Order: sequence, then structure tokens, then C-alpha cells
Amino acid sequence: MDHVDRVVSGDLPLYAVEDELPPEEAADVRRRAVEELADSDLTEVGRLHDAEEARSNVENAVGATRVPLGVAGPLDVDGEHADGEYYLPLATTEGALVASVNRGCRAVADAGGATARVSKDGMTRAPVFRVDDVAEAKNLAIWAEDEGFESLKEAADSTTSHGELLDVEATVSGDSVYLRFRYSTGDAMGMNMATVATRQAAAVVERETDAELVALSGNMCADKKPAAVNVVEGRGKSVAADVTVPHDVVEEVLKSTADEIQEVAHRKTHVGSARAASLGANAHAANVVAALYLATGQDVAQVVEASSAFTSMEAREEGLYASVSLPAVEVGTVGGGTALPTQKEALELMGVAGGGDVVGAHADEFAEVVAAAVLAGELSLHAALASDSLDSAHEDLGR
Amino acid sequence: MDHVDRVVSGDLPLYAVEDELPPEEAADVRRRAVEELADSDLTEVGRLHDAEEARSNVENAVGATRVPLGVAGPLDVDGEHADGEYYLPLATTEGALVASVNRGCRAVADAGGATARVSKDGMTRAPVFRVDDVAEAKNLAIWAEDEGFESLKEAADSTTSHGELLDVEATVSGDSVYLRFRYSTGDAMGMNMATVATRQAAAVVERETDAELVALSGNMCADKKPAAVNVVEGRGKSVAADVTVPHDVVEEVLKSTADEIQEVAHRKTHVGSARAASLGANAHAANVVAALYLATGQDVAQVVEASSAFTSMEAREEGLYASVSLPAVEVGTVGGGTALPTQKEALELMGVAGGGDVVGAHADEFAEVVAAAVLAGELSLHAALASDSLDSAHEDLGR
Amino acid sequence: MDHVDRVVSGDLPLYAVEDELPPEEAADVRRRAVEELADSDLTEVGRLHDAEEARSNVENAVGATRVPLGVAGPLDVDGEHADGEYYLPLATTEGALVASVNRGCRAVADAGGATARVSKDGMTRAPVFRVDDVAEAKNLAIWAEDEGFESLKEAADSTTSHGELLDVEATVSGDSVYLRFRYSTGDAMGMNMATVATRQAAAVVERETDAELVALSGNMCADKKPAAVNVVEGRGKSVAADVTVPHDVVEEVLKSTADEIQEVAHRKTHVGSARAASLGANAHAANVVAALYLATGQDVAQVVEASSAFTSMEAREEGLYASVSLPAVEVGTVGGGTALPTQKEALELMGVAGGGDVVGAHADEFAEVVAAAVLAGELSLHAALASDSLDSAHEDLGR
Amino acid sequence: MDHVDRVVSGDLPLYAVEDELPPEEAADVRRRAVEELADSDLTEVGRLHDAEEARSNVENAVGATRVPLGVAGPLDVDGEHADGEYYLPLATTEGALVASVNRGCRAVADAGGATARVSKDGMTRAPVFRVDDVAEAKNLAIWAEDEGFESLKEAADSTTSHGELLDVEATVSGDSVYLRFRYSTGDAMGMNMATVATRQAAAVVERETDAELVALSGNMCADKKPAAVNVVEGRGKSVAADVTVPHDVVEEVLKSTADEIQEVAHRKTHVGSARAASLGANAHAANVVAALYLATGQDVAQVVEASSAFTSMEAREEGLYASVSLPAVEVGTVGGGTALPTQKEALELMGVAGGGDVVGAHADEFAEVVAAAVLAGELSLHAALASDSLDSAHEDLGR
Repeated sequence: MDHVDRVVSGDLPLYAVEDELPPEEAADVRRRAVEELADSDLTEVGRLHDAEEARSNVENAVGATRVPLGVAGPLDVDGEHADGEYYLPLATTEGALVASVNRGCRAVADAGGATARVSKDGMTRAPVFRVDDVAEAKNLAIWAEDEGFESLKEAADSTTSHGELLDVEATVSGDSVYLRFRYSTGDAMGMNMATVATRQAAAVVERETDAELVALSGNMCADKKPAAVNVVEGRGKSVAADVTVPHDVVEEVLKSTADEIQEVAHRKTHVGSARAASLGANAHAANVVAALYLATGQDVAQVVEASSAFTSMEAREEGLYASVSLPAVEVGTVGGGTALPTQKEALELMGVAGGGDVVGAHADEFAEVVAAAVLAGELSLHAALASDSLDSAHEDLGR
Repeated sequence: MDHVDRVVSGDLPLYAVEDELPPEEAADVRRRAVEELADSDLTEVGRLHDAEEARSNVENAVGATRVPLGVAGPLDVDGEHADGEYYLPLATTEGALVASVNRGCRAVADAGGATARVSKDGMTRAPVFRVDDVAEAKNLAIWAEDEGFESLKEAADSTTSHGELLDVEATVSGDSVYLRFRYSTGDAMGMNMATVATRQAAAVVERETDAELVALSGNMCADKKPAAVNVVEGRGKSVAADVTVPHDVVEEVLKSTADEIQEVAHRKTHVGSARAASLGANAHAANVVAALYLATGQDVAQVVEASSAFTSMEAREEGLYASVSLPAVEVGTVGGGTALPTQKEALELMGVAGGGDVVGAHADEFAEVVAAAVLAGELSLHAALASDSLDSAHEDLGR
Repeated sequence: MDHVDRVVSGDLPLYAVEDELPPEEAADVRRRAVEELADSDLTEVGRLHDAEEARSNVENAVGATRVPLGVAGPLDVDGEHADGEYYLPLATTEGALVASVNRGCRAVADAGGATARVSKDGMTRAPVFRVDDVAEAKNLAIWAEDEGFESLKEAADSTTSHGELLDVEATVSGDSVYLRFRYSTGDAMGMNMATVATRQAAAVVERETDAELVALSGNMCADKKPAAVNVVEGRGKSVAADVTVPHDVVEEVLKSTADEIQEVAHRKTHVGSARAASLGANAHAANVVAALYLATGQDVAQVVEASSAFTSMEAREEGLYASVSLPAVEVGTVGGGTALPTQKEALELMGVAGGGDVVGAHADEFAEVVAAAVLAGELSLHAALASDSLDSAHEDLGR
Repeated sequence: MDHVDRVVSGDLPLYAVEDELPPEEAADVRRRAVEELADSDLTEVGRLHDAEEARSNVENAVGATRVPLGVAGPLDVDGEHADGEYYLPLATTEGALVASVNRGCRAVADAGGATARVSKDGMTRAPVFRVDDVAEAKNLAIWAEDEGFESLKEAADSTTSHGELLDVEATVSGDSVYLRFRYSTGDAMGMNMATVATRQAAAVVERETDAELVALSGNMCADKKPAAVNVVEGRGKSVAADVTVPHDVVEEVLKSTADEIQEVAHRKTHVGSARAASLGANAHAANVVAALYLATGQDVAQVVEASSAFTSMEAREEGLYASVSLPAVEVGTVGGGTALPTQKEALELMGVAGGGDVVGAHADEFAEVVAAAVLAGELSLHAALASDSLDSAHEDLGR
């Protein structure tokens, strides 16, 4: 009985095929078995994939999903780390997205480029501990932030040479205490690094105090959740970008006016978001972030945090002032999916693949470009909505 | 001068190559031009892609991003539409995710399967209108919900044969009025359908009242934003799944106990999420949703809404009761990226590709499986955190 | 041994004094006993109070708290129910508040009055039920909204002649189902009425289905909590007011300019509130609402909901357009503390004491005045901040 | 023409009466004038008030609102500052509230008292500044937190001898920068102190950098708004209290069981609050806080923040564990309305009137009692809901 038959018959579990075969072959065996088990055809999925490279990125691999990749740009960015023109790799299935970002890039270019800055940086992990009562909770909170900090830092920092513990913030909720550890993580997104380091630090908490660890993540981290804690305190990179687009560029490239765009921003992006009780206030930041993250091997579930972006559009004498601020851009240029073949090429296209000469410089550069790309997307969609409503009005009049 | 040279020299804009060449060739030309422009190598990106199929999904195509695809399951689902065992296609770069979901599937199977239900359904689009003052705003609000509704519905419904306008909810904010149109959209996710229909209805508003359209989306929709309006009123499918896992299965498969898992759920998922001021309360719903969405051609930016999921884990006499409730699962089995080669195979693997025999049945079935898959993922991660903290305690004691 | 001694010695519990003495005397006895027990002096508290009138408003009465009452106005309101000039009774201990509102009233008057409208109305109570699983949960949700609605309405409506059940909205969360009952409640705030009616309806749910009531309030009501459900769906009266203040009035009365005020509103009220992850976007709505509620016998804990107000300030050609929208103004002119001596006088000062000739007309009129008063307060504080920052700049330059 | 006539005729503005008469008389004149202007009767309002004492608390005074004051307790508190039994002065018009708190106090007493702790302390004010672009924004953010901090502190601290600047946190949003100044404020609530100090510090920002102050409050403070920033970072005192109530006490005093109360807490307080998208998770914290604040001269509009309280109820072997955590209790025992006659007596009843021997000790003690009082209220209402639903079930069965 060959491997496929053994999987189909249940003799060989899906996850155990790798124990007997090299990754490429294992994926093929598994795919053929699943085809049989589910009476299905996975030819396209199996046609071209990267089992070897994907080893640490997936289990039970059967092939690859192919997502169309378009390019927008060049996007002119003036950051601390980003400098010059960037072609944006955007993997998406949403028609019109790349075209929209592309138009925004043109507006930014014609305006002389976007300014971008990372103003805060740090990956977080927040375990939750159980203590006896609120009195002990207070003691633990103070200990972790103050006198115990050095021992926590020593334990955490011992687990990595690429980052370090920056600070700890404690929150008391009855007999639960949440310690939010914040780390620098170099060019890595850093979630794994932070988890490993925090596990070590949590052991110190358990050794040095009477607290008991309940869960290594207590949801105040907060990873892949739309949580105000990330908006207020930031997670990963807190990055902003802005540009003032001259009135003639607004009219020629964006086919609108600064006044109209400001009104859309006011009624939709500010008031509408507030009335919807949104975290963040933007038009479609998630779209741009998702396409960039997907193309470059970031964790697409972290689009959740990035979607809490804040966009502003104001009509001023010198043109349309536009800004975006993203409190939680969790990105890396090493680790995660960044080494996969197509993802790595996408990072290389932007000149940020792998670690930077200065630690963290590539990740910062990438974050600045992400913000500028979101800015381009916001400009374009706000303008489209403004001119679309106008068109609609015109059609209406024409009837 | 060939096409590539013309693009590089700026004679031929990136987006205009399709005007002169068929899609496949256009993508190749563009890719080579971008490689030259950015001094970069996109060999892998260009190796295998689906330019023809991707035509309506992307602009400025240069190739494809390949994302590792793993399979978890079978997942035993007892829904209104879903019935039986499902293999879950999960496209991800996050190591351990597929394995984790797989373990959760096993626990669900050993518990006899998960129950799943779509309890509410409707895709929304909420344009914002400008009126004279709050008096006119009230008039418009009442008109749209009551006397004007039929004319709005007639206009909206005239644009599609696959869905219909279900209701309109009005929100007054000063001289801005937001009308949230809600549609049935059959087996499509329906965002485009809703937009087209709402544009037509908005024209009726402008014709029949003194209101002027400011933006076809006023952010109370709310698409791809973490907004409470979606949590409270739902968007797309509001779907829930639950299971009671017998104590012996909790111990053998999940390597934990119901009491420990309940404590993790209480301190982390309920209290921790509340303290983080999260929309939703879960461990990692976004991970599972993102991997499924990506594999099946859904819009990955809509993971944002899906991340507002509510998980509950309770120790009961008969076992561990676990449930997940997702107010905003926006999915379709037709349209969007669902027809792309690998994505279509993934939907076929689940038996839900294309339109169902009964309109909307495939989309509902898929939504039920999404909820059950999230349930599997939540079970597994809660258990892992519970046993991990235990291990950590044990290690600690061992020192 | 007299009553005081018996209370002090523990023979007579504080709450049992009324069993032996009339309210006035009971309050005196209790006060003297507490003075002795806590070695304290409550002379001022006991000097003048309304034990008889307060019978249903407090237990263990010992006297009264006196809060300074100021008057602002007249406030010129053009509502559906409010019409003309209103003097605002404001009970507060915050210096400058009355003066600030007073200035706002002047600006409103000089602008020709504020327009105000109640656009939605309904008091809610949302019990939570336990069911078997998500399948039964869906059944209950559908039953309560559709086929079961009439029997729920019959039961609820049987408990009162002042209001009626308007609709029921169901939310499924695992095996918990929340049914949000919404009622018209005439001139009463209606929380008690809604509770009594819902208790009766909940009994019908338990009789007609397999669901079991867990709590008569399941926190989706949501009473006295800052919850998005109230912002999205409204609670009590959803009321808005607006005014366009001519530029000369902005300068003379508000000592600022429309442009400056718009900038304050943009950076502080819109962006600042969003960055703080606020429910609502305003400068100090809670201040004005609290002072009005306190003076007129409303429930001051419901200031919580009212604080989720949305303010907009825009510089336009014709002047400064200002609006406020309050989704959850829970007020009444009968019931609660409205019959207490000073509170009743405050309502009479506004011409809205007791039930209106048309049912609900007084409560609606009052709600319109509340919104207009908040508008006055917002105008004044935004202007003060604008001119204050200017002053600060001037002082700075002067150094 | 006497003063009343002059006010009625418009000769003498309401606010100018004090220029000609002492406070007591001015209030009388104004009241009689308002009675005439509004054809109203304010006899009760004028009967007994404290014009002299209220001078700095209100403008345009016409008298006083009287709110019924009840007493609950004694409440047994074991805090760092609170120690022993406290009688709680509760000013309210909501029937059953005092009785409910009283029952909770009994349960706490029978359980041996509640533990309470202030784990974080600091009053905040967050002005918003305008800068050139995001590059300058980053510079300002870093300057304010780091190198500029000492000069900001010097300026801020120069304005008061009762408090000091603790830290500054900067948030960049496009070309707006929010600096959240946090102060210790001794026994005062500290909002005024923080405002005065921040004004001085803001002048330093304007002098030392190119930033311009837009508004002294940029809504990230966030005062009297339901904002996540307060939940995440705290404002005023972050205080928690807990108690384990033995099972027999739960049954005898609270007429319920730990299991039933836990279920109410789970489905209502945790899941229900999450589904309502609430900031905070509690049953009626706002009620208790409002009554205590009102009685003791606190700012009742700050009940808004206090309502974001987190309650937990868990059935354990030793009894019902109950805790409350309030991130933003803004209280003082000096300043504000604390010196008014009845309010001062209420503080004295609790032994916390005026400044403590140790700076801040009275305010901390008061905050601990507030938390313990909320705990009592939460215990009682959760129990009432649990037994009420049971009764309802019983009635139902009896039919």
C-alpha cells in the first residue's frame, strides 16, 4: 500500500507524512490523498509550490494558493529610513484597488512626495496572572514595573540577541494582573520573539512572587484583535505619513477639489466612523495594508490592527492636506513568511528584504512605505467618493 | 522599441499595456519593465500566474504571490446547510496554525460534531447625505425608513436579480443623514451588488428629497473597519457554532481540563478583552478566518470585521461547552476571487464552489463551516494556553 | 429606650424605623442615630428635606443634599414640541459651567434660535436567556422577532396603559440569546415601565419556548453604561439640535472666529476623540446634561449614555454651523425624581412638568431643550478653547 | 425701580446682580426675577440654600436643588488608607438603590470585609498642538517625553504646591500632536490644578518648539467622556476591591447561590457587555458612584468615566469571589463641591473631609471606599437578578 492509500485509509495521519517523506513529496502525497478523501481536484493548488521553503510556515501542506499580484507606483516617500521612489507589490483579488492606489501615488508624486515617520515602536505580549486578591495584585503591578523590572528584563533579554525588553505596564482587574511586556525586535515583526522572551519572564514572576501564570497571552497584547489598547499605546510601529497636494494636482489627478474631499472626510471618515463606533477613522486602510502584507509575507491577520488607522483631509490655502496615522503596523523583513520565494522578491522590489545594515532599519523603512501607501489609497478613494457623488448628482439632474 | 522599453522609458504607462497586448503578455511585459525600473528580480512572481482569470481582480498585474496551503480536518459540522465532514483549506504563513486547527477539528469530531447556524444575513452600504438642518434630517430619516422605502427598494432591486433590499436604517448626525441599506445577496459576498444598488437608490433620494449625496459610503456600512455597528447589527452573515466536548476528549485530545480552559477563557478572553477595550472577545479568530478567506478567494481585508468574534468556554458536568459567535462574516462562493484557479479548487474541496441549488445555500454553508473552523481554532488555542501555563508552572517547580 | 438608642444599639435596623414612625420622624431618628454611630454631625443634611415626597426615591433617608442651582438663558428653541424661550435650571458644583452655557444661549438667541428634533424614541430592556445550543438560539431569535412577537407584545402591553412594546431585536451569542425589547413610554423615562413589561414578556418566552431566563437585564439594554449599542440603535430619545451662528455673533459673543472654532472641533472633538477611542465626540456634553438632569429629577447615572454625544462645528460662508446629536437621552417629566419639590419647580420653570396634553409631548419637549442646551454649551466651550489658546499664544509672545 | 424689576426689564443682566448685591440677596433677586420672567414659582428652590458657600460653584444662583440622602452600611473596608466601617451617604432619586447597596454591605461585612487598593493615580490634561507635518510631529513627541520633559515639569510644577507633573505621553495624528500630562494632585480631584499647570507647560511648548497650541484640552484627557484611553491608562485613581463571600452568606443575605450569580455575571456582565460593545463590564456601577459623588460634592459628570468598571463574580470552593476594578475614579476631598454644607457633612460622615494628614491620604481612602461601595452594589444586583429570574421561573411553573 503506498503512502496515499495509507493516508486515505487512515493508517497514516495527514501530519505524519513528513515523518516518512521529504517535504515536496509529502505535500504531493497529502494532496492526492485529500483529493481522494474529499472527492476533489487540487491540480492547480499542486502545480507550483514551495514545500521546502514553506516548512516553518504551514503544516499539512498540499500546495499553494496563488493570489494575483499587481504593482502600483512609483510612490515617492520622504521618511527617516525610506527615501525615494518605491514600487508597491499588491496581492489582491479586489478589482480597482491597485488602480486606485496607483492614482494616489501619482498625486503624491506630483505633490513632491509624502513625509513619513515611525514615532513609536515595540512589540507586545501580555500574560495574565492569578493572585490572591487586589492587595497582592497591586503589589505585583508595582513589582513588575519597578523593582522586579530588571530581573524580568534579564530573563527576557537572555532569550534573544535581536531585541530587548523596553518596559512593562501592569493592569489590575480584581485578582487578575496583566503585564504588558514591550520589546524592540529589530527587523522582525517580533511576535514570536516577544512570546519566547515573555515566557521566560513569566517564569521569573512565578518564581519571585506568589502569582501564577494563567495564560501567556492575556488579550491585552492585543494580537489580531480590534482593541483600543493598540490604538492608545501602539503595537509594532506607530507610523504616520502626510502630504499637501496642490489644488491643481487635486483637480487634474484626483478629479475633485480640496473642499469636496474635505467634506467627504468630515461627514464620512470623521463623523461616520464615530457614529459607527469605529476604532479608527479611515476610508479603506485595510485594503492597502492587506495587499501589501500579503505580497510581502507579513501576517495578514494583523491587518485587523492596521485597520484602526486615522485619516485626515483638510482644504487649505496651499492645497489639500492629507495625513494617515497607523498606531499598530506590525511588520518585519525577516522571519514569518518573508523568506518565501515570491514574498522575498516583493520585499526586494522595495529594497527592504532581510535585515537592514542598521538593526531595524529595513522594518522601519517598510513601515514608512506602508503608511505612505495607505495615504495614497486614502487620497484616491476620498477623491473618488467625492467625484462619484457629484457624478451621481449630475446624472440625477440629467434625468 | 519594444513594449518593455516603452514602459521603462515612460512612454507606455504601466496600466496601458493591456491596451496593446493580451493579459498574459501584458503581465510579462510589465513584470520585466518593473524589474528594470526597480533593478529587481521577479522570476518567482512571474513563474506561474493566472493573468486571464485575474483580469477583474487586479490591475497592473505582474504575476502571482504564492501562499503555502495546508489542510486541516475533517471538521464535522451540523448546520442548516453544512452537513458532514469538511476538509479546511488554510493558506497561511503562520507556523503551527494548521496544526492547531487540526487538533481542534479532532476534538470537535470526537465530541460528535459542531452545531452551526447563520442567524442573520444581509450586506450593507450606508451613503451619507447632506441636508439643511436637523429638521430636514428627521424628515429624510422617516421618509427613507417608511414612505420612501418602496421607491428606494424598487430602484435598488432594479439593478440585480441576485438580491434585494431588505431594509433601511437612518441615523441623524446634525445635517448629515446616514442611510444603512441592507441587502440579501445570494451566494455572493455582495459588496459590489450592494454598492451598485445603493447608487441607484441614492439617486432616488436626491430626486425625491432635498438631500444631496456626499459619499456613497458614509462609513456606517462599515466595510473593513472594526466598527461596533457591525457587531450590534451584523454585516454579511451573523453565524455561531458550538460544541460540548466530553471531559475525556478534553484531556486526551486537548491535553487540558475543562476547568483550566474555562479559567483561561474567563481571565484572558472575557476580562482581558474587556480591559483591552476590544470589539469582540476571542483568542485568535482572525487567524483562522484569514487563512480560510485567503484560500477561497474571499476579501482578506474583511478579516477585520470577522475578528470581532465572541468566544465562550465553560466547564459543565457533561464536558467543556465551547461556542463562537461571529456577527460579521462576509463571504461568497461566486464573485470576487472565488473563480481564480486555486481558490476555486479550495471551494470545491469544501463542496461549496459556485452558486448553490437554492440561492444563497452555498454561501450559508460556507459561513457555517467558517464558524465551526473558528470554534476548532479557539478550542485548540485556549487549551494550548492552559496547558502551556501549566507546563511553565511545572518547569518552575522543577528548578 | 427611644428609637435612636434602639438603632444605635442595633436593636432596630436602619431600614426598619419606618415601620414604627412616619417618614419625617423616621428620617430624623435615623439621622441622629447615624450621627452617634459615626460620631458625626449631619445638621445641614437634616435641616430641610422632603421625607414624605422622597418616600419612593430613597431608603434609609436621613435628609437631603443641597446642590447649588443656577439659571442660564433664555434659550431660544425651535423644535417640534419645544417652541420659544427657555430658562435652564442647572444644578452643579462646577464653577463657570452656568456662565458658559449662558453665553452659548446668547449666541443661539442672536442667531435666531436653535432647531431641535427627536428623531427616534424608545426605552429598552434586554433580558438574557439560556438555550440548549446555537440551533435553539436561532429558533428563539426568529420566534421572538416574528411569530412570537404578538404574544410578547400582548403580555408586555398588559402591564401598562402609558406605553407599548414597539419591537424586539435578538442577538445570539452561543447558547445565550439577548432579546432587546423597545417601548414607547409616554412622558415617563420608562425604565421601570420597561422592566415590568419585560418581566411579563420573559415569562411568555419561558412558557412558549425551552429557553430559561438568566437575568432580566442582559446588559444589551444598556442602562447606565457607555455601550455602542445605545449609540447605534438609540435609547430613550435620539435627539439633535443645530444652529448657524452668523460670523459677527461668533466674534462678538463667542470672542472667536468660525475658522478657529472649526479647527478646535476638528483636532480636538473629531480627531482627539477618535484617538482616545471615545464613544461620542464632544467637548463637555456630560456637564450640561448632568446639571439639567440633576435639577429636574432625572436619573443622573444616565448621564453616562448622554455623554456619547456628537458635536460638529463647521465654518461656512453664512457663519458657524454647529450641531449636536445625542443618541440616548433618557428623560421623563413624570415618575422618578420629577415630583420632588425643587425638581418639580425646575420642570415647571421650563413649562414641562407632569404629563403633556398629548402623551409624551412634555418629555419630547424636554429632550429637545436638552439638546439645544448641550448645543449652547458646546458652542461656548469650543469658542473658549479657541480664544484661550490664542490668548496663551499672545501671552507667550508678550514674554 | 428695584433690582428685580431691572432684571426683568433687561436693564440688569442675570449675571450682574452680584455686582450690586451680596450673594444671598443676589440669589433672591435673581430667583424672583426669573419667576416673573418665566411665570413660574421657585419657592422650594429658594427656601434654603448656600449662596455664600456656593460662590465658586455656580453662577446665576437662584437657590438649591434638594436631593434625598439615604445612608447605607456600615461597609467594612480593608484598604491601604481605608480601615474599618463606613456609613455611605447616597444622594439619589432612584428607589431601591440604597436598600440594594445596604444589602451588599451586609454581605461584605459577613464575609469579613472587602479588600481595596488604589493601584494607579494621576489626573490628566491633554492639549493638542498643530505642527508642520508628521516629521515635526515626531520631533515634538520625542522632545516632550524626553529632553523637554524637565522644562515642562518645571513650568507645570511652578503653578501649584499640591501636586506635580508625573509624565507626558505623546500621540501623533498627522500634523496634530496630543500631549497627555499626568499629575499627582494630593487630596484634590485635580482637574483645575492640572489645567492651570498644563496651560503653563503648553506655553513652554510654544516657546521652545514651532508647535502652536490649538486647544488646551485635545480630548485625549479624557474628561467626562466614555473613552478607552481612560480605561487603558487610568485617570484619577485606578482602584479595585474584592471579597470572597462564604456560601452560607450568599444564601442567607443575598438569597442566591454562587453558581447562579456566576452565571448571571458570565452571560450578562461579561458576554452581554461585550455584545453591547461596552467600555467596561458591570451591572450598575454608575448608580452607586453617582449617589456617592452627588452626596460628597464630587463632579457628577465624572460618573461617565467611573461607569467603565469591571466586575467579576466567580463560584469557588470557599464561596463567591467578587471583584470590581474602576480605572478612572476622579475624586477629591478638598476643592470642587466638597466644602458645601451638606456635602462636607457627608465627607465627615466617612471621616475623609478636607486634606489628609499625609497628602492625598483622604482622597485615596475615599477612592477605596468608592470601590468597596460599588462592590457591595454589584453583589446585591447580581444576586437580585439571579433570584429574580428564578422567581420568574417559579411563577411560570406555578401557572
